[in-house]
Amino acid sequence: MNVYTFQPTFVAQMPGNTFGKYFRITTFGESHGPAIGVVIDGCPAGLPLDPEKIATELARRRPGQSRISSPRAESDQADILSGCFDGRTTGAPITLLIPSRDQRPADYDALKDVFRPSHADFTTMARYGIRDHRGGGRSSARETAARVAAGAVAKQFLDLHNIHIRAWVCKIYDLEYPDIPSEAAFREGDLHPVRCPDPVLASKMEARIIEAREAGDSLGGVIRGWITGVPAGLGEPVFDKLQAELGKAMLSINAVKGFEIGSGFAAAGMKGSEHNDAFVKEGERIRTQTNHSGGIQGGISNGMPIDFRLAFKPVATIGQAQQTVDIKGESVTLEAKGRHDACVVPRAVPIVEAMAALVLADQLLGFRLAKI
Amino acid sequence: MNVYTFQPTFVAQMPGNTFGKYFRITTFGESHGPAIGVVIDGCPAGLPLDPEKIATELARRRPGQSRISSPRAESDQADILSGCFDGRTTGAPITLLIPSRDQRPADYDALKDVFRPSHADFTTMARYGIRDHRGGGRSSARETAARVAAGAVAKQFLDLHNIHIRAWVCKIYDLEYPDIPSEAAFREGDLHPVRCPDPVLASKMEARIIEAREAGDSLGGVIRGWITGVPAGLGEPVFDKLQAELGKAMLSINAVKGFEIGSGFAAAGMKGSEHNDAFVKEGERIRTQTNHSGGIQGGISNGMPIDFRLAFKPVATIGQAQQTVDIKGESVTLEAKGRHDACVVPRAVPIVEAMAALVLADQLLGFRLAKI
Amino acid sequence: MNVYTFQPTFVAQMPGNTFGKYFRITTFGESHGPAIGVVIDGCPAGLPLDPEKIATELARRRPGQSRISSPRAESDQADILSGCFDGRTTGAPITLLIPSRDQRPADYDALKDVFRPSHADFTTMARYGIRDHRGGGRSSARETAARVAAGAVAKQFLDLHNIHIRAWVCKIYDLEYPDIPSEAAFREGDLHPVRCPDPVLASKMEARIIEAREAGDSLGGVIRGWITGVPAGLGEPVFDKLQAELGKAMLSINAVKGFEIGSGFAAAGMKGSEHNDAFVKEGERIRTQTNHSGGIQGGISNGMPIDFRLAFKPVATIGQAQQTVDIKGESVTLEAKGRHDACVVPRAVPIVEAMAALVLADQLLGFRLAKI
Amino acid sequence: MNVYTFQPTFVAQMPGNTFGKYFRITTFGESHGPAIGVVIDGCPAGLPLDPEKIATELARRRPGQSRISSPRAESDQADILSGCFDGRTTGAPITLLIPSRDQRPADYDALKDVFRPSHADFTTMARYGIRDHRGGGRSSARETAARVAAGAVAKQFLDLHNIHIRAWVCKIYDLEYPDIPSEAAFREGDLHPVRCPDPVLASKMEARIIEAREAGDSLGGVIRGWITGVPAGLGEPVFDKLQAELGKAMLSINAVKGFEIGSGFAAAGMKGSEHNDAFVKEGERIRTQTNHSGGIQGGISNGMPIDFRLAFKPVATIGQAQQTVDIKGESVTLEAKGRHDACVVPRAVPIVEAMAALVLADQLLGFRLAKI
Repeated sequence: MNVYTFQPTFVAQMPGNTFGKYFRITTFGESHGPAIGVVIDGCPAGLPLDPEKIATELARRRPGQSRISSPRAESDQADILSGCFDGRTTGAPITLLIPSRDQRPADYDALKDVFRPSHADFTTMARYGIRDHRGGGRSSARETAARVAAGAVAKQFLDLHNIHIRAWVCKIYDLEYPDIPSEAAFREGDLHPVRCPDPVLASKMEARIIEAREAGDSLGGVIRGWITGVPAGLGEPVFDKLQAELGKAMLSINAVKGFEIGSGFAAAGMKGSEHNDAFVKEGERIRTQTNHSGGIQGGISNGMPIDFRLAFKPVATIGQAQQTVDIKGESVTLEAKGRHDACVVPRAVPIVEAMAALVLADQLLGFRLAKI
Repeated sequence: MNVYTFQPTFVAQMPGNTFGKYFRITTFGESHGPAIGVVIDGCPAGLPLDPEKIATELARRRPGQSRISSPRAESDQADILSGCFDGRTTGAPITLLIPSRDQRPADYDALKDVFRPSHADFTTMARYGIRDHRGGGRSSARETAARVAAGAVAKQFLDLHNIHIRAWVCKIYDLEYPDIPSEAAFREGDLHPVRCPDPVLASKMEARIIEAREAGDSLGGVIRGWITGVPAGLGEPVFDKLQAELGKAMLSINAVKGFEIGSGFAAAGMKGSEHNDAFVKEGERIRTQTNHSGGIQGGISNGMPIDFRLAFKPVATIGQAQQTVDIKGESVTLEAKGRHDACVVPRAVPIVEAMAALVLADQLLGFRLAKI
Repeated sequence: MNVYTFQPTFVAQMPGNTFGKYFRITTFGESHGPAIGVVIDGCPAGLPLDPEKIATELARRRPGQSRISSPRAESDQADILSGCFDGRTTGAPITLLIPSRDQRPADYDALKDVFRPSHADFTTMARYGIRDHRGGGRSSARETAARVAAGAVAKQFLDLHNIHIRAWVCKIYDLEYPDIPSEAAFREGDLHPVRCPDPVLASKMEARIIEAREAGDSLGGVIRGWITGVPAGLGEPVFDKLQAELGKAMLSINAVKGFEIGSGFAAAGMKGSEHNDAFVKEGERIRTQTNHSGGIQGGISNGMPIDFRLAFKPVATIGQAQQTVDIKGESVTLEAKGRHDACVVPRAVPIVEAMAALVLADQLLGFRLAKI
Repeated sequence: MNVYTFQPTFVAQMPGNTFGKYFRITTFGESHGPAIGVVIDGCPAGLPLDPEKIATELARRRPGQSRISSPRAESDQADILSGCFDGRTTGAPITLLIPSRDQRPADYDALKDVFRPSHADFTTMARYGIRDHRGGGRSSARETAARVAAGAVAKQFLDLHNIHIRAWVCKIYDLEYPDIPSEAAFREGDLHPVRCPDPVLASKMEARIIEAREAGDSLGGVIRGWITGVPAGLGEPVFDKLQAELGKAMLSINAVKGFEIGSGFAAAGMKGSEHNDAFVKEGERIRTQTNHSGGIQGGISNGMPIDFRLAFKPVATIGQAQQTVDIKGESVTLEAKGRHDACVVPRAVPIVEAMAALVLADQLLGFRLAKI
């Protein structure tokens, strides 16, 4: 298989657009196609489904929501095409369709034959021998709107089990927020364009992002996720450890370069006597004194909050001129246009929550007493 | 579901002992049961299978291999029970059985009703309501011998495609090795008990481990993986991104708390203009000047080396007395016995390579021209 | 679990709307909802996709196509929402959406609380505790339009490999057509409302159906499938035998009560010396003299035509009054209205072909040389 | 892909040795290898496991059990290698290993290069390009011993839910038993070598089989399955209909050529007014007056007994000389030796029950209330 001359013939793809085993979603649609959407298969029957909650989550993700996000004007409203009757799920597959309104495929004509650095252009050609170049096609972050819509359904299922998911920005470039916010601080922070729970830090972060945008550059960052109400017993002891499922979910988000559970990489510099989480009895429950385990031990939840972090690289689309090659291997200079964020991390917060919700809903459906 | 009073009734488990879609393995067996093993389903027919190579990998993982590893005396030899005929695979499932010889279940009698801190004891009860307490049962690191055996088969398949996997210890506690070793340095380093390619640093690391053992403590560390020869085009653009599959594989290894691909968490502190990997033409190939992408862009391999790191926590079994609770929730003091490593990181190197080999073999079988 | 009092609480469904492993489809939508559709994941990239061929297959299945079919006025046109660019597949999921135009949910109000005999009403309540009663909801044969659309894509893939699928009506009630038609006879017969290749018999069958309709009754029948051009080597030797995959596909079609491969039930009355298919050399090929095996031996295709038959029960909706019970268990008399066929067998022919195409496309993608 | 010249290179197999989604088994081992076995993944934890019941089922299947079965002397005892602790399942994978004692691979040397008619020899070469010719390798009916062992575990799970499975021989060649036996008659009949509940007919059938054996011939037959205690609500409405899952399971058994549920092929000759099963109230339950549906409506169980039949071809191995070709395509005359049954149908009864048990256990684990 040659890297450079792309396959001229017929190339097989394996199905890779499905996530989850019991609460299973399949997403579809390209960045500048007529619509994107998702089919949810395995959602329990009888669940009251509130379309407002889906709209709220989509609004947290959509472009154009604030002064620091891409101006692409997508209202991102999801139509429920199936699986719902009289306001409740029926057990049939739930289809959510998000029509695209602000398609501008022509914006991408100049990029038809160029491989943008650190984008999926080159690798898409290597895999498929063909490419829908309009805005990244299937590799576009627009696909994540479908995940957010599905995640909003999963969240409604989790709500009934008192499982709650929060994520926030804990780092932008050189600025870091190390704490666990109160629920009030989290809610407040989520309204800020940067989605960091500390308002002073959030303003500084926003300034950094604007500065980068003005320099035609982009910035990376870190998001922290925090899940409460998880019962002990979710997850599998071997390959399908809960942290492995969560890690896969998070590493499937565009631009994510790293994942940590609990102590994460800091654990590598610790001793066992420091790291071990002592069990203590608290009323009728067993809990741990510290939470280096991040709520998961031996791949299975232990009832403590699940605590994870994920690193985002700076977005690859920048305003500065860059050297690259075209489809023939010739050197070209690329100057990007288009409507992009200088830092995607704030808009990725609802995506992180959605993926976490999908993992938890799946796990919850995979656990039960066998006597029925 | 109560965390504290464990389910008295029948508890359902979902199948979680299988890894891979096309090159698919299923492991079985408990730490102190009669045997552990693995069934490999989907290995191509006609592959010459060298049992010596399986033995070599198992020897790299087995306890008792050096002065810093657990003295449990397991020879860890794998019998090939099926799937091989006249030295070649037939396409039938390959079964590798590793009988246990040094079982000492009685060593664990004192732990029958105690939840060891940061072990899987408590969560296993929460999930199953029943527990094979002998040496951790299914959650024992002994299960990974089956993975290593299967990985040794995958490696023989990858060898034929010139895909090579190397992993080494790049950090123990406070000592760090930041380089990419030459192949010779890698091979040399792999013979050292610590498996760090820098002999001076390796000796210091070994001293740290012995120091910790003598203090009844344990140490964490980091392993780096490096895969060469990967053709461009492996991986899926959405949920099954190559880094997501690799990440899941690595996070399914006991004691792993974090995973990074390419630039990893460092990316969060970078600008796009620094992080982007410029494409350049080199002879008939396209390559990138830097490799912050770690060999994967948009979830698909780009032909550059795949570069990843994973963090291990210090092992939970330590010699020092610890406070914990028993199955009734009463406080107890635990003093561990048993035969354990003060630092598992060196012995985890072949496990990391095995999981990487399983992921790559799976991906390779999932890619091809459709014309047959 | 009580059969009679339906579950008042939350009922879990498992994902069951997906078919295929490598060429994988997920269907969605209810009979009288806004649309039905299908997502195809795993279709090779670069396949030229002709929407006309999809339209042709849908026209063969749609209601109102002839004097013996239901007058529901559905044009059944599929919009391609994703996965296609410049007339070729891109490897991304292909979404086909079929909006419903002639929805008449109110027609079904009288059936809201009644369990129609031999329909899915009762069992749907038993499984989900909730039911979309409008025209059978998800259990409606309308769902099969999505299968036919997906099958039309699979057929275009198979055409490139010279695999061709034909199905025809070989029995209606007491009238039987025992032959294998020539391609011309097949094509001619397919244009007749009954889809039986013998025009004289077809007219008699049509008369039987009209007679039954006038008596407020319905009739069963048999369809035979015939697949040519299948290379030897497709299928798996153990659980996923080719006849098992085909059988599952066919038995998933509404109203199918039986499946035969090759000699079928007749084999039970035969001796080995009669039944065995002798191998003979024919030019450069090996073939068999007879084809009792139906093109499959040991679960794997042998290069001979694949020959199967499936039995359809008479449709459950009849015009005659019937005794049944309602949701409270009270006896009621049911007189059906609605727009139904007195014999679905002719319209099921394209569904049978579609399911066969989906199985074959899946198998073809699951077979290949491993060297890539 | 040429039928005749077998692939000289590397051939990929897809994983096909696993059955079930929630109660999932993977079988391994070849006819004349050292052992065959099965890994069961997903069996609930806490299930009391009685090895005697496994032994009983294996004894019903094993060769040499009666005057009409193959004299191969296999004791067929299963060792429990994992997943069981103190007599109960732990939720870990259960491994059952059946060592082979009467291996005679040399018996098959003469068949190394010959394609036996209606066997899997030719198709195995076409698929894999390599073949373990010793007794059929993986395609041997010996593989079904592993299914029976796993089915015996599934039966113990189903027993706790009062689901009971019975199968019996209802036809040998020209002799047919059309009734549903009482439980006593079933038990009595199961002790007869032919496993037909009518002792007079059973003796006649036995005579037919002996007659065929003496003529160097073999006979086909039909087995009927009958499952009681199934709650309403098992199965899925679309692709994974309960009859489709059962049908796939049965069609995966060697030599099966047809499958019927309820009325089966007879339905094709019926009118709706005859075929519909009227609902009636019986005490607190709803049942149907007739059972043409065979216990399944719309793909979901309705609480009535599940009733199915499957047709077996006469075994391909016969004593008479047959014309065939060898691996080079040359005509050869084949005279079989070896130790074979003239009619496998009686020994297939426990296999049918095992596959039914595996399907039902899987379905039972796939159904539940979502509130946990």
